[in-house]
Amino acid sequence: MPHKTHKKFEEVTVSTQPIFQGKIISLQVDTVKLPNGAEATREIVKHPGAVAVLALTPDDRMIVVEQYRKPLEKSQVEIPAGKLDAGENPLDAAKRELEEETGYTAGSIRHISSFYTSPGFADEILHLYAAEQLVKGQANPDEDEFLEIEELTLEQAQAYIREQRISDAKTIMAVYAWQLYKLTGSFPT
Amino acid sequence: MPHKTHKKFEEVTVSTQPIFQGKIISLQVDTVKLPNGAEATREIVKHPGAVAVLALTPDDRMIVVEQYRKPLEKSQVEIPAGKLDAGENPLDAAKRELEEETGYTAGSIRHISSFYTSPGFADEILHLYAAEQLVKGQANPDEDEFLEIEELTLEQAQAYIREQRISDAKTIMAVYAWQLYKLTGSFPT
Repeated sequence: MPHKTHKKFEEVTVSTQPIFQGKIISLQVDTVKLPNGAEATREIVKHPGAVAVLALTPDDRMIVVEQYRKPLEKSQVEIPAGKLDAGENPLDAAKRELEEETGYTAGSIRHISSFYTSPGFADEILHLYAAEQLVKGQANPDEDEFLEIEELTLEQAQAYIREQRISDAKTIMAVYAWQLYKLTGSFPT
Repeated sequence: MPHKTHKKFEEVTVSTQPIFQGKIISLQVDTVKLPNGAEATREIVKHPGAVAVLALTPDDRMIVVEQYRKPLEKSQVEIPAGKLDAGENPLDAAKRELEEETGYTAGSIRHISSFYTSPGFADEILHLYAAEQLVKGQANPDEDEFLEIEELTLEQAQAYIREQRISDAKTIMAVYAWQLYKLTGSFPT
C-alpha cells in the first residue's frame, strides 16, 4: 500500500520539542512555518499503528470483545484489534491479534481499508481487515488484557451502536462495511 | 446522547501523572489497578472533542477540503471538521465549521453517529453529521488554516479512497454512510 505524498499547503518544521516518550505513544510539539510565512505550533502524538479485524463466523456473526478503555472510563464492545509490533507486517498483526484475543484463525483474510484515526493531532494509522472461514482455537490475551468475547448479528451490532456499547471508529466502520458487503456482495473499495 | 457507563473489567486509578497541557491536547499517565490486582500504566491523551460534516450539494456531491496534516507530513482530502469550542454544542459546532471552512449553510442537518477515534490512548469523540439543502456563502477559515474546497461524486470519493488522497476515519466513514444512504434511503442507525 504505497502512500502518495502531497505537499499542498506544506507546514515546514522550524523546530521540534520532544515532550514525552512512553511505552505506546510519544508526544512532541513542532513549531512550523505556515504557507503565509507565519509560525504556529503543532501538538503531535506518534503511535506505532494498529490493526483491527472484522471476523465473520460461518453463521454470519461478527466477533467482538468487551474491554475496559481507561481514556473513556468505561468498557466498550469493539472488534479485535491491537498495536503493530516493531517491524511487524499489518496482515501478520491482524492474524496474531485475532488469534490472541479470540482464539480464532482465519482461512481467508483480506484488507478493507487503512485510515488515520485522528490526523489533526496523531499519526496513528489503523489497518482494517475482513476475516472469514474461521476455525476456533484457544484465546491467549496479553497478561494485562481482560476481555470478554461475544458474537453479534448485524442487527445486534447496529443495536449496540444505538445503545453506545459500540462507539469507536474502527468498529462502527466495520459494521458499515459489513452492511455494504451484504447489500452489494463486496466490501467497499 | 446519554453515554451509558459500563464498568466491566474496571481499571481503578491509583495515581495520575500530568505530563503536558497544550493548546489542543493534554497528556497524562495513569497508574491503574487491573482486575487481577496487578498494576499497569495507561498513557492518556485528553482532547476537547470534534465534529465533522458530510455535506451534500443539491447535485449530490460531497464537499471536501484539502489541507496539510502535520502529523502525517502530507495534505489530505477530508470532510469539513473541527474541534468543539469550550462549552459548545456539537450541532452548533458542526454548523459553524461547515460555514467557516466552506461558506455553506445547511437547511437540514442531522446526526449520523458519534465515535471515539482512538479509545486505546485518547478520549477524543467525533460527532458526525449529514447536511443537506445547502446554501452557498463566503468561507471564513481560521487564520492558521489553509485549505482548498472540492466537491466529489460518490464515485470520485471512492476513487480518492483507493488513491489514499482520502485516508482518515471520519471521511471514509462518511463515504460508507453516504453509500448506505443511497442504497437504503436512510443513514445507518
